Formats: sequence, structure tokens, C-alpha cells
Amino acid sequence: MASHDGPVRVALLGCGTVGTEVARLLITHADDLAARVGAPLELVGIAERTLDAPRDPVIDRGLLTTDWAGLVARADIVIELIGGLEPARTMQLQAIAGGASVVTANKELLGKDGPTLYAAAEAAGVDLYFEAAVGGAIPLIRPVRESLAGDRITRVLGIVNGTTNYVLDQMATTGEELGQAVKQAQEQGYAEADPTADVEAYDAAAKVAILASLAFHTRVSTADVHREGITAITPEDVAWAAETGHVIKLLAVAERTPADGEGKSGIVVRVHPALVPDEHPLAGVRGAFNAVFVEAEAAGPLMFYGQGAGGVPTASAVLGDVVTIARHLVHGGRGPIESRYADLPVLSMADAVTRYQVRLRVADRPGVLAKVAQAFAANGVSIEAVRQSGSRGDHADLLVVTHVAREAALSATVAMLDGLDVVGAVLSVLRVEGA
Amino acid sequence: MASHDGPVRVALLGCGTVGTEVARLLITHADDLAARVGAPLELVGIAERTLDAPRDPVIDRGLLTTDWAGLVARADIVIELIGGLEPARTMQLQAIAGGASVVTANKELLGKDGPTLYAAAEAAGVDLYFEAAVGGAIPLIRPVRESLAGDRITRVLGIVNGTTNYVLDQMATTGEELGQAVKQAQEQGYAEADPTADVEAYDAAAKVAILASLAFHTRVSTADVHREGITAITPEDVAWAAETGHVIKLLAVAERTPADGEGKSGIVVRVHPALVPDEHPLAGVRGAFNAVFVEAEAAGPLMFYGQGAGGVPTASAVLGDVVTIARHLVHGGRGPIESRYADLPVLSMADAVTRYQVRLRVADRPGVLAKVAQAFAANGVSIEAVRQSGSRGDHADLLVVTHVAREAALSATVAMLDGLDVVGAVLSVLRVEGA
Repeated sequence: MASHDGPVRVALLGCGTVGTEVARLLITHADDLAARVGAPLELVGIAERTLDAPRDPVIDRGLLTTDWAGLVARADIVIELIGGLEPARTMQLQAIAGGASVVTANKELLGKDGPTLYAAAEAAGVDLYFEAAVGGAIPLIRPVRESLAGDRITRVLGIVNGTTNYVLDQMATTGEELGQAVKQAQEQGYAEADPTADVEAYDAAAKVAILASLAFHTRVSTADVHREGITAITPEDVAWAAETGHVIKLLAVAERTPADGEGKSGIVVRVHPALVPDEHPLAGVRGAFNAVFVEAEAAGPLMFYGQGAGGVPTASAVLGDVVTIARHLVHGGRGPIESRYADLPVLSMADAVTRYQVRLRVADRPGVLAKVAQAFAANGVSIEAVRQSGSRGDHADLLVVTHVAREAALSATVAMLDGLDVVGAVLSVLRVEGA
Repeated sequence: MASHDGPVRVALLGCGTVGTEVARLLITHADDLAARVGAPLELVGIAERTLDAPRDPVIDRGLLTTDWAGLVARADIVIELIGGLEPARTMQLQAIAGGASVVTANKELLGKDGPTLYAAAEAAGVDLYFEAAVGGAIPLIRPVRESLAGDRITRVLGIVNGTTNYVLDQMATTGEELGQAVKQAQEQGYAEADPTADVEAYDAAAKVAILASLAFHTRVSTADVHREGITAITPEDVAWAAETGHVIKLLAVAERTPADGEGKSGIVVRVHPALVPDEHPLAGVRGAFNAVFVEAEAAGPLMFYGQGAGGVPTASAVLGDVVTIARHLVHGGRGPIESRYADLPVLSMADAVTRYQVRLRVADRPGVLAKVAQAFAANGVSIEAVRQSGSRGDHADLLVVTHVAREAALSATVAMLDGLDVVGAVLSVLRVEGA
């Protein structure tokens, strides 16, 4: 690869919270960055929809332009921080077509349509880096696609959404209802006015699609991810979790399933609330922090922990990518390309294999447990423990903990339990992970 | 960079625990590795001192040779797992001179003489990777020198020696003496027959020298590291730590010191036992696990956690480096070179700034606390809290917790306390980190 003369020209698309911090670091750390790259990084422009919005004083207004296409044409590295599908995709593709490398934090676009971008970058011989798309400041993409490139990852368990972790942590600490905790998160700046993308796990689903693609050398899109948000979690669930030595986390899970009797093996990718045992390293991840736990055949368990969002932390990840690409331009080199050779089948949620805690309201009379146990047995789901929470007049609450079972078998069990005359209600079904 | 035809030839120097696992992964994961690299990895030979030692059956005896020089001349990538200074240095330099890239786990050599090797690799235009040298399987080197390349690291706090972490954890759990805990570690395979390198922190000192060099873009050699082992730690220290909400860890610390009144600013690199508050993420790192906590200006706090030793986990890190270099050979590219532009002064331990817990045996009579407090004040060390552990006849034990102070001032304070007639003994002085 030819070596680069003069400064490396950097264009910024989007100047919100993260973009402003990226600009600030490019300006205030210019000397450090130049020394690390071997050439100056020159911020040649910032594309925005309007030029007259209020800006942080660090932004030289002369850099602002609405002509993103003209700006992209003058850049060696384009940083896309607009987010969303369009116009971000068009902008990235045009940058790549023009020979620029791209750095992005756009999980939505990469989760939905990453392969289009990876293929374009590979064909053009440019780099596409996206460390900031998952886990904010936490180095995750490089470790997974480079450090672990000689190993076989078997499972990824991640807390990849700070908003929901804050909300669930708040519920665990104060006993609040979900709605109150969300309000608290909004007041603290940890949740958007419309919290849907976070609490319904759209954000986490996009991130785990990206991680799963890298971890399993297989294309996984957001559409392949089984997604459940946290809106059904009640203070009672939280209290029961604590009572049984767990915390509830919104977990992003990507794992290889063991080959079953029919020889069906592949990966399952899912996001949902889950019970995590108190002793697990993920259980201690408090507030808006993120952490990703990776299990690999040789490396064993690994965990990566840090701030998963926020303008300043995310800017750190963006700048790390910019420096890496700029070093390639100056010294020669090229980042990794898409690795999808394994092409594992992405199985449905019905094929997931995990443990469950099922809470039931049952009639409080002899023979009930036998009928309940029979429903599990009939579906081949083995019970590890049963616990009754004390009689409340004519009914009692029953907590059933299973051994590992296929999701399909558990669902069938729940349907059968729902039909039993001795079962008043299936109060909650929570998966247990990391045990 | 020219692209590579045919298989990438890999030579292994040393076939102990890690080497055997590297060979096993190269052989059993050959298809995966070839797919990830874009060309097969061919293990062309294994150099060992003797050919007739017992070997794992996975090792094809036809690959074994005592002629390391001949082997190195036939390789594109040389994996040095001999350890120690010589002949490892000569082997690496000869490999580099012959145009091979090098992967090594040799912390002792890199800590003492890394710059010689980095310079040789840079001059020859080959890669030198060493992810396995620090933190075993944990991706640390790549995150620090690539992901955080756009940020400013202010502090690294690491548990980088599994043996001592196991020993200290054992002491905390059982109340055992150090000697018993070391024996336990030996029985469990976590400590060598001669545990000196671990318990006296030589191993951790080499590792933190490597991390500090990368984190601060400054050459730091093992000789620059202030080193104290764990041999002075008593069950009483451990009990007091628990009593005050801490755990004792052997911590590797590399940090920027704030510019003081004299404008003196630089880095201090040190390894010693330290009190870590129970709430700190490092406090939960149990058994032989390792973890490194990194604080950066923009990213904020980050933590990397996993298995820091063992043949199989270390082999994962080695193979990750091999795949990265092999991709460079096949697709073009080049890894990072030494970054030492910042060239910060490496200050002595006297310039370290931290908090302290000082335990004293004092006479149990009025006026003693005033004299003790006066010794701290005379040296400009501010006291945060004092606690007396109950009278024992004519003496009592006093626990003094300081605010941040310079090590030099604390040392002068301790010397002055030692000379006071009311002080029977300075029982222990422990630094408090991560608060």
C-alpha cells in the first residue's frame, strides 16, 4: 500500500454529542495524535443539516458545511456519526467509492446492512472500522476480530445497553416500578425522552448482531435476533431474583448450540431479560456501565468492562479507529476484512438451550406439585429445584428452576401449565444465564 | 506490501506447556485458521534442546529439531516460547534479520530489552507481536496500543500475576499464613516449586514495564519499576483489610503523576501489595484470574478480565497474533511499531502519590494520638481517619488512613513515627489504590 504524504484529511459527518467530542479531541490532542500516526490529522470539515444551530465553541464554524458530498470527496477518512439507515448508508458508500476509509458508530446500519458496507470497503481496498458501535468506549471489536482470531468463541454474554442496565439496577436498589426507574434514568440523562429503542432492546439487538457476526464468522443481521425488552419486568421479579441469589440484566446472548440428536448445530442470537447469578462477573456491572463476557475454547472466560455510551467515551473509540486507519495510510497496512467463512445456520429462539425460573400461582392443596411436575416431565424438561413461597389463603406461589432445556420444550411446558386447572397463572418465566 | 503465495510457514521455538497447546491448535484448528487467514498455516518445525523428551502425542516427532537457526530460516512467522533472556533474544533477532515476523510471550525479555527487538523489527519491516506476554489470554496489548491510540491513558492498575492473586485470595478466605497459602497454590498447580519470580513480583514488574511503555508512549524497562513482593503480608494485614472494607491485591500500577509545585510531571511505575476497596471492580477478581483496570481521559474506566496464565489460555493469545500477522502477509498490512514519542520522565517511587493505611502499636495513654498526628502534620501528610482497635494492657493498635500524599513524605513520616517514644512499632504500611 502506498505511503501517504502530508496530513491525513478527516471529515466528520454529524456533529451531535459524539461528533462534538471527536472534533474536540482532534483539535486539542492534535500533537499527540500526529506523533502517534506519524503525520498530522487535519479535520477538513464537518457536515451538518443546518449551519446555524448552536455549537460548542470548540467547533470552528468555518469547518461546517451542508455539502456532505463535497466534503467526503476531500477526505482520506470519513467519520459517520449521523446514525440511522439513511442518509448514513449513502454517505458511507459514497465515501468508500471515492477511496476514503470509514469510521462509524452506526450500530443500526451495521446491524441491518453491514455486509453491503463491508463488501464495498473490501472491493475499494479501504478500511471500515466501527469500535464505537458496540460497547461505547470498551475495546470489543478489535479483541473479538483480532485477538481471538486464533480461538473458537463459544458464547458471548453482554450487557450492551446502559439505559436498561441503569433502570434494572435502580429497580434492584430501590424496589421501584419500571416506569419510575425509567423516569429516574431520563432525569439523570441515561434515557431518551422516547426510551423505546433501549427498553424494547432494539439497540441491544443491533449490537449483538454485530458481535455475533464477528464472533462466529457468520453473517447475522438484526432481523435474526430474538428480541424481548424489559417492559414486563416487575418489582416482584426483581425481589425474587434477589431472593434466589440473582440479578436481572438485559442480556445480549450469542452462542453456539450443541449439536442435538438431529445433528442440528448453529448459533442462536437473542436479547432478553435474564437472571444472572450474583457470583458471575456480569452481576456486578452497575448503573449505566456495559460489559461483555466472552467464552472461548482456549482463552476460557474473558470480560470487557467500561462506559457503553456518552459523547466523550464514544469519541475515544472513534479516535482509536481513526488513528489505526491513519497509521495504515502513513505506514502501509490494512485492517481486517469481513470474515464469514463459517456461515453457521442462525437458528430460531425455539432452538435456544438454557435454564429457566418459572413462577406460578397455584391452588394450595395436595397433589398440585405432582400435576405441575408432570407438565415439565411431559415435555422432557428436567426440574432442578422447586420452592413454595408460603400459602396465601387458597393459593400459593411456586418457583420452579429447570435444568438446561430447549426453549421449544419450555414454551410447550408453559402452554401446558397454563391449561392446568390447578395453575391460576404463570407469573413469570425468566431465563437463567451464566450459571 | 507484497502478497504471499502458498502456505504461511510457522516455526515454534520451545515446546513446553504453551508450545504444546499452540501446536495442538495449529493442527486441530487448521481449517478454521486457513479460512480466517486466507491461506493455510503450516507448522514447519519445532525447535527444542533435546529430541528424546516425552511429548504430547499431538506433536509429530518429525517436526522436532535442535537446529533452531535452520528452522528459523525457513519460517515466515517465528513463535518464541523459550522464555528468559538468552538464547531467546538471539533467536528473535536472527529470525527478524532473516525477514520473519515474531510472536512471543517472553515478558522477561521484552521488559528488560524490548526496544532492541522493536527497533530490529521496525528496521526489517516485520511484525513483532506479544499479546501473550501480559495477562495470558486477556486481550490487553491490542486494546492499549490500538483501541486507545486516540485517547490519553492516565493510569493502569493491574492484577497481572495469577499466583499471587491466588495466594492472597486464599489468605483472605481461610485466614492462613502466607507460607501455607503458597503451599496450597503449589499443590493446585498455581505456583512453581520455586515461587520467587511470582511472590517477589519479578513477573509482575516485567509485565507492568511492558504495559507502561505502551500506555504512555515512553520506554519503561523492568529496571525502572519499583517492586515489592507479597512476603511481608500477614494474616493480620488481611484481617484489617477486610475490617476496613478492602482486599489486599498485588497491584501493578503505572500512572501519570500530576505536575507538582516544582512542575515535575512524569510517570511512576510500581508493583506492590495494595488495599483495594471492596466496591472496586478489581476487588472481585478471585483465584488465579487476572484483570487490568485502565483509566483514560475520554474513555473513563475500563477493565479487562480473564485467565492470566496456563498453557491453553496463553496459546489463544499467541494464535491471535499469528493470525493477525499471517493476514498481513496474505492481504498486505503491518502491525503497529514502537510508539515512544512522549518520552515522559520515569520518576522514582519517592514521587508516587497515593493514599496509605498505617498501623501502629502505641502506648495506651493520653496525648499519644496528638504526638502521632503531629508526625504526619510535620511531613505535610493529611490524615483522613484514625481508628483505635481497643486497648491491650498498656498498649493499643492505631490505624491511620491518610489523604493522598507523596511517598517521600509518607516515608519521612514513618521514620519519624519509628523514633517516637510512644510508638512501639510501625506494624504495617499499605498503599490504598483505586479509591
